[in-house]
Order: sequence, then C-alpha cells, then structure tokens
Amino acid sequence: MSDKLQRLKAILNDVSDLDMTANLLEWDQSTYMPPGGGEARADHLATVRRLQHERLTGDEVGRLLEDIAQEGGLGEEDSDDACIVRVVKEDYERRRKVPASLVAELARHVSLAHGIWVRSRAESDFSLFQPALETMVELKRRQAEALGPSGCLYDALLHEFEPFMKTAQVKAVFDGLKAEIVPLVKAVGGAGDSVSDAVLRQRFDVGAQREFVVAVVRRLGFDFDRGRLDLTVHPFCTNMSPGDVRLTTRFDPEFLGTALFGTIHESGHGMYEQGIPPALRRTTLGTGASLGFHESQSRLWENILGRSRGFWRHFYPELQAAFPQLAPVGLETFYRAINIVRPSFIRVEADELTYSLHIMLRFELEQDLLDGRVRVADAPAAWNSKMQEYLGLTPPNDALGVLQDVHWSIGYIGYFPTYALGNILSVQLYEKAILDAPGIPAAVERGEFSPLLAWLREKIHRHGRKYPPAELIRRVTGGPLDSGPYVRYLKTKFGEIYSRPARSISSASGRGRSRPRSQ
Amino acid sequence: MSDKLQRLKAILNDVSDLDMTANLLEWDQSTYMPPGGGEARADHLATVRRLQHERLTGDEVGRLLEDIAQEGGLGEEDSDDACIVRVVKEDYERRRKVPASLVAELARHVSLAHGIWVRSRAESDFSLFQPALETMVELKRRQAEALGPSGCLYDALLHEFEPFMKTAQVKAVFDGLKAEIVPLVKAVGGAGDSVSDAVLRQRFDVGAQREFVVAVVRRLGFDFDRGRLDLTVHPFCTNMSPGDVRLTTRFDPEFLGTALFGTIHESGHGMYEQGIPPALRRTTLGTGASLGFHESQSRLWENILGRSRGFWRHFYPELQAAFPQLAPVGLETFYRAINIVRPSFIRVEADELTYSLHIMLRFELEQDLLDGRVRVADAPAAWNSKMQEYLGLTPPNDALGVLQDVHWSIGYIGYFPTYALGNILSVQLYEKAILDAPGIPAAVERGEFSPLLAWLREKIHRHGRKYPPAELIRRVTGGPLDSGPYVRYLKTKFGEIYSRPARSISSASGRGRSRPRSQ
Repeated sequence: MSDKLQRLKAILNDVSDLDMTANLLEWDQSTYMPPGGGEARADHLATVRRLQHERLTGDEVGRLLEDIAQEGGLGEEDSDDACIVRVVKEDYERRRKVPASLVAELARHVSLAHGIWVRSRAESDFSLFQPALETMVELKRRQAEALGPSGCLYDALLHEFEPFMKTAQVKAVFDGLKAEIVPLVKAVGGAGDSVSDAVLRQRFDVGAQREFVVAVVRRLGFDFDRGRLDLTVHPFCTNMSPGDVRLTTRFDPEFLGTALFGTIHESGHGMYEQGIPPALRRTTLGTGASLGFHESQSRLWENILGRSRGFWRHFYPELQAAFPQLAPVGLETFYRAINIVRPSFIRVEADELTYSLHIMLRFELEQDLLDGRVRVADAPAAWNSKMQEYLGLTPPNDALGVLQDVHWSIGYIGYFPTYALGNILSVQLYEKAILDAPGIPAAVERGEFSPLLAWLREKIHRHGRKYPPAELIRRVTGGPLDSGPYVRYLKTKFGEIYSRPARSISSASGRGRSRPRSQ
Repeated sequence: MSDKLQRLKAILNDVSDLDMTANLLEWDQSTYMPPGGGEARADHLATVRRLQHERLTGDEVGRLLEDIAQEGGLGEEDSDDACIVRVVKEDYERRRKVPASLVAELARHVSLAHGIWVRSRAESDFSLFQPALETMVELKRRQAEALGPSGCLYDALLHEFEPFMKTAQVKAVFDGLKAEIVPLVKAVGGAGDSVSDAVLRQRFDVGAQREFVVAVVRRLGFDFDRGRLDLTVHPFCTNMSPGDVRLTTRFDPEFLGTALFGTIHESGHGMYEQGIPPALRRTTLGTGASLGFHESQSRLWENILGRSRGFWRHFYPELQAAFPQLAPVGLETFYRAINIVRPSFIRVEADELTYSLHIMLRFELEQDLLDGRVRVADAPAAWNSKMQEYLGLTPPNDALGVLQDVHWSIGYIGYFPTYALGNILSVQLYEKAILDAPGIPAAVERGEFSPLLAWLREKIHRHGRKYPPAELIRRVTGGPLDSGPYVRYLKTKFGEIYSRPARSISSASGRGRSRPRSQ
C-alpha cells in the first residue's frame, strides 16, 4: 500500500471511530441516559460530529486523494481500495460544502430536539415540538442549500440516505405504486370483515414476548455475541462495529404485533451490519449501501418471511407454547391476523398494503415544509388532511398523527422514501434469492434461515458501501430497481387472503376453534 | 471575557466533551457492550483519547496561555477563570510531555486488557492476564518516564490520581498508619469470635436488594433524574456530566454486604460529581479535586455513616421489612455484623480496620513492578507473600488474590494509595462537618442527610478541581492531611465493639433472639 493511501486510511479510521462513537452517544441517549444528561449530550454529539466532519473534509484529505489518483495502482475498479478512494472522494467533495459550524449546530439540535419530541409525543402536544421542528427545518434547509445547487432542495437531503436517487425518480415510482395500491386497498375494503386480528390483541406477558422474539431473531441469524436488544421509544438499529450491533424495540402488553414484527424488522438491519466484512471496518465504507438497501433487508425478514405461511409453519407451535391463549387459534387464522389490511394511523404498525401510502404522505409533506409551502405550525393540519386523502382517516390526536415518528426530531428529512424503495427492492431481492437457491422456502419452513442469510451475505452484505445503490441492484438482480415484482407480490398475497371467506379458513386450519378468547 | 480566554475555553469544551465521551465508551464497555464489540471499542477509545490529548496539548493552547498571562485581568486568585487558567497550564505542561501515540497505545491497551482481565478473573487464571499486564506495566513505565524526570517513576503516576502527592509522603503516612493498625488488628483478633456476620450471609433476593439499595442512596441524596445504577463486574462510578452520573454495582445473593455497602460507596462518588456546579462544566475542572478527595466522599458515606449505629437506627426497620429473615436479628447484632473485623482476601469487602493493609500491599507491589524489582510473572507469588505478611492469609487462588481488582487492567497504577488517603481524609472532613453543623448526627438518625450533603456541597463539591488537594484540605479543615483523627476513630469504634462480649450485646439489642436463621 502506498504511503498516501495508508495515510488516507489512518484519517478514515479516525472518521469512522468518531462516527461509531457518535452512534453510541445516540444509542445511549435513546435507551439509558437519565433525563439530566440531555444538555451535555447535545454538546458531546456536536463536538464529536464536528470533529468527524473536520477530519473528513480537511485539506489533507483533498491533497491525498489527488496524489493517490496520480499514483494509480489501486487494482481492479471494484477492489476494496479503488472503491474506498472513489466513495471517500464523493463524500469529501460533498461534505466539504457544509460548514463545520452547521454540522455542529445540527448535531446539537438533533440531540436536544429528540428529547423534546419524546416529551411532546408522550403528551400528544405538537406545540411543545413546534419550535424545535421549525429550527430543524431551517437547519436542514441551510444544509440542503449548502449541498446544492441542484435547484431541488429535497434532492440534496435525499442523497444523504439514498445516494444518487432523485426526487423526481421517487415521485415517478410512487405515482406508479399509488395507481396500483389504491384500487387494491379499495378491493380489500370491499371484502368486508373477512379477516380479524383480535387474536393478536390480547394480553401478552412482556417477559414472555421478550423471550420469544429474542429466540426468533437468534434463529434467523442475529448473533447476540455481537449484538444486543434494548428498549426504546421508537425502535431503531445502530452499530458501533460489525461486532457490536444494537437492536432496540418496544413491547405492547396488549398487542403482540408491535414487538414481534418490530424486532424481526430491526434484526434485518442488524444482520446486514453484522455481515459487513472486517476488511471494511474503519474505512467509512463498513456499513449498508443505502437506507433503501437497509430497508430491503429489514422488510424482507419482517414481511416476506415474517408474515408468510412458511415462516409460521415452523414458529407457530413455539408461539403457541409461549402463549397458551393462542392454543385454540389455528395457524391459518393467525396468518390472516398478521396480514390484516386496515388503514391505520401508525406507519410502523401498518399492513404491507397500506404502508406505502404512509410514506407518500411524508414524502409530499417533507417537500412542502422544506420549500416553505406548508408552515411548520400547519404541519398537523396538513398531515391530517393527507391522512384523509390517502387512508380515509383523521388521527384523533397528534401522537397518532404528525408526532408519531422520531425522524424529523433527529434531522432525518429525506429518509422516509427509502422505506418504500426498500419494500420494492426486498421483493426483487427475494425473487432473485430463490431463483439462485430454490431450496430457501423449504428451508424456511424447517426453521433454517442460513441458506437465505448466506445468499444475502454473499450478494449484498459483504460489499458494504462499496457500490452506489443502483449499481449494487444491477450486480445482484441484473437490472434496475423495478416495482413490478413488489406489486405482483402484493396482488397475489392479498388477493388470496381477501378472496377466501373467513369461515372456510378457520375450519381449514385443522386446529379447532379459531375464535380467540376475549380479553 | 477576553477573546483569548474565550478561545481557550472553546478548546477546553472540546477536550471535556471528548473526555466525557470516552467515559461513556468505558461505561458501556463495562455494562452492556457485547463480547464482539471489544476490538472496535479499543480503537474508538484510542482515537477519542488521542484527539482529546492532541486538543489539550496543541501549540495553540500554549500560545493562548501565554497571551492570557500577559493580559491579566482574571480576577481574584480563586476566581473560576484564574483557577481554570492555572490548572489548565499545569495539565498542558505535564501532558505535553507524553507523545500522542503513547496516549493512543495506552487507551487501546486499556480497553483490550480490561476484557482479558474479566476472563482471566472469571477463570481465576493469571496466565491469561499476564501478557496484558506485562504490556501495561511497560506502557505505564514509558508514560512515567515521559512525565519524569523526577527520579521516582511512581511519583509521576501517583500525580495522575493525587496531584502533587509524593511517594515518600505516602510511605511516611502508611508507616505511621501501619504502626497503629497492626496492634489494633492483633488486639481484636485476641478478642476471639465475639462478633459474627452470619446474619449477612444468608440468601437475599437480588431484586429486593436492588430495590433497597436504590431507596437508600436516593434518600442519601443521589439524584436518579441525573444518574443511574447498573450492573458490572467491578463496581465503579463515572459521569458524562453533573447531570448524568452512573453508579455501577454487583449483587451477591448470599451476602448482603456486597451491594449494600458497595452501592452506598459509589453513591458517595456520585453525589460528589452531581454537586459540581454548572459553571465548571466543559472546562476540564468540572470533576473532583483528586481521587483521594473522591474516596473521602465515598468512604464517608459508606463507613462513617453507613456502618454507624445512627444510620441504622433509621434504616434497619426498613431493611427488616425488606428481608424478613432479619426480623429476629437485633439492631446491635446487625451493627456488629457489619463491623466485623476479620482479615480477608478481597479489598472492597474488607472491614475498616484491615482495609488499609490491602492498600499498603498494592502500594509496595506496584512500585516493585514499575521499578522492575518484581517481574509480572512473579506478581501472584509476591502478592501472596505480602498477604501472609500483612494479613496472615494466603489466597487459595488468584481470583481472590492478584486478579481481584480491575485497576491494573485499566492502567490505574498509582491509584490505590488514594483509597487510604481518602479514608484518612473522610474522618477529618466528618469531624469538621459536625463541628460546623452539630445537628448532623441527630439528622442522620432521623434519616435526614441533606444537612451533611449541603455541607459537603458547600465546602468541597462546588469547587470541583479548582484547588490542589492539599490546598482544599487546608481551606476546609484549616490544616494539612492528618491521620490522627482517623486512627482515633478506628480505636474508639473497634475498641468499643471488641471490648463488649457478644452475649451482653445480643440481649442489649432489645429485639429478642439474635441468632440468625440458618440457610
């Protein structure tokens, strides 16, 4: 390795160490930090993020990149070193446009605003959060303007989470999706109450829930020697290294779905990070390719597997053993319950069919806020009006509406689209996986997940952030991002569920009475 | 404030933020970090500590200190600003002597060696830890040599924990103490088995223990809105700000003393940090004056209060309510049990009388290791031989011997003397406190601790690290460190306990049978 490259890597080590350190500061803030720690934590994060920024964007990095380009000799175009230099050059040029003072200001405000959002949401009082959100929108606008000048502020923010994706592309994808999904939701609504999730809405002991979800994600392949699961307000996954990946979740004693699918979801993110190869550690490339790719992993495990019949053929007997109240409930009734389609207020608990509508709402509202078409003070009203338009519902309060998601409080404006992109990609990837390894579905039914995980490791995880997302999609699937498979998947799955009457299903389950015990 | 001072303070903010961030990295490593996180954590700590060091010792700080000295105008000698400049100048000049690469190497090794020590202690196998300790001693020697050149390596390390204290002074104090304590221990040994701690050695539900100790330290004045209590292998207290102070403890289901006195001890450290005024936050002076001062607080709460009759007149009925097995045990029997004198293997569980002997052993052995008179490979034998000499015991294994303490694994060589200095100081401070506020002992019996805490806040806590320890002792007590009061305290307390025969005590307790239920 040349001296220049070695020196560049030493700087990247610092940048990465500071990044991972900030992750711990943030994880701790959302899990264990006492209330009195908030103000100082904001300072710590501002300092660490600023130093990280200064280290990456210092003149020395620019000179080293130039020298390395002249030297050449980095090997194949897709060698680790060639990719590191290419990606770091992009990061360097892009981030250099943002002043360190703005980075610090943002990090500080993110840390404070998060605490304010927690209280505001707990009290369902938007007015508490409004000033913090106003500052946040202003700071993100300044960040976007610094990153510009592409004309579209949202493009600049979107790139932070989904590199090279454009707002116009997202809009085109979403328009196509909306045209397919809205009629589907309508058709399902016309099928009446043929599906019920009452079996999930009973009292479920939180300790037993915890034990069960830990056992499930361990079986899927999440390695608890290299990770943890803790409690938080809004579940997330973060990591300090591939050897230290932290899932968080929340438990609802009256609804099994929250922790069960939430934890499987986060474990999908977690297994991605655990699959990053040691060679990329401390290079700044040792993480997922994009948030959309990350979400493709979490949604694949949560939905394509976690809400499938095959998955529960294996796990349902264990679930029944853990929760005797499910003993009289047949597998088919349970399968339908976890796939109920019902327009609802909370995105993270939305069914697969209406989920994307929640995203479209946020995608539009974020642009309106950023471009000043909607004032922050009017965000609750704008939210509620879009909820009515997309889902035919009006939230009874802001905790079930505009305050529900953590994202805006932590500066994640431009992030939401990646959820829908991840859904689309998850089906493309799974179809390719079973094409390459047709034994996967049968393995899943036996509770064997290593064939699928091995495929994901080989095709996706091991590349970290080496390739732009579009390039990685092409490398894996042979083509571009395509919502066709996703729409077909939804049509097939929900067409089947909602075409069969409930009665024939319950007797088809072969496990006796399907009616749940009432609470 | 002058521009120069403002600029200096901005740099100190960074130094302090990085210091507090490293504290979180260390806290997490000892509480929640999964095993796979160790290697990366060592990198993070090395980077953060190195950047902290570079920030403090950069040329700019030197120039600013010179300019500020020329400008003058910092107010009174003991104003915050004058103290900040004085202390930072000392820190700057001292730490500048140590190369940043050595700081990073040490931080990295500390992080790795800690994990190795945990395993080595768990398996009671010194050979696992030996190579890590050899490296540690070598690194600490290099650090001491860099800090030198005073001729005495140990002086340089001691200063890190007890500024301006000299090895020769410690030796003189210890020699005096030894002359008093050894005959006392002998006299107590001659009194036979008049005291038993069997009542503490029963089964005590860990959940109930936790609830009780949390209630106690809350009552003492530890603020859980600005702090936490978590589990660890070797209890410690750390903080990320005065608003975020973390106690750790461990529970022994078969012995009440471990968590009870351990947690009270750590809460003494914690209340000190919670008492640092906001004005000193982020200045690098926002912490205790020295480790000796810190220990004076923890030992005051743990021993002078926590092992006193008055304290338990208030708390014992609550303890009996929490643990019905203590119902038939009289207060006096309990008081004697928690004050049993018995040479034992584990320092942190040693009685007040033999405690200092454990420290003297370490003080001598550390110097022998540092100066090369004892090889690391021979440390277990040297330890055991000194245990025989000081306490008349030979540890049956290394977990109960040379491996018991965390300190050497985390580079704390030169730290142990501060424990004994803290003991001495704790009595001096308490005697002054009740001279100033004679109502304190009666308040303690009523379970009111705010008079004592207010005195400590006013006299000690609010000064943070503004004064050298000797100066702070003089400001508080009017004189120098003096082991006289400590020796008198020990003689009075244990003279009384061991002069009365057990039988008369048990009937004097007025609570019926004193014999504990057997397990």
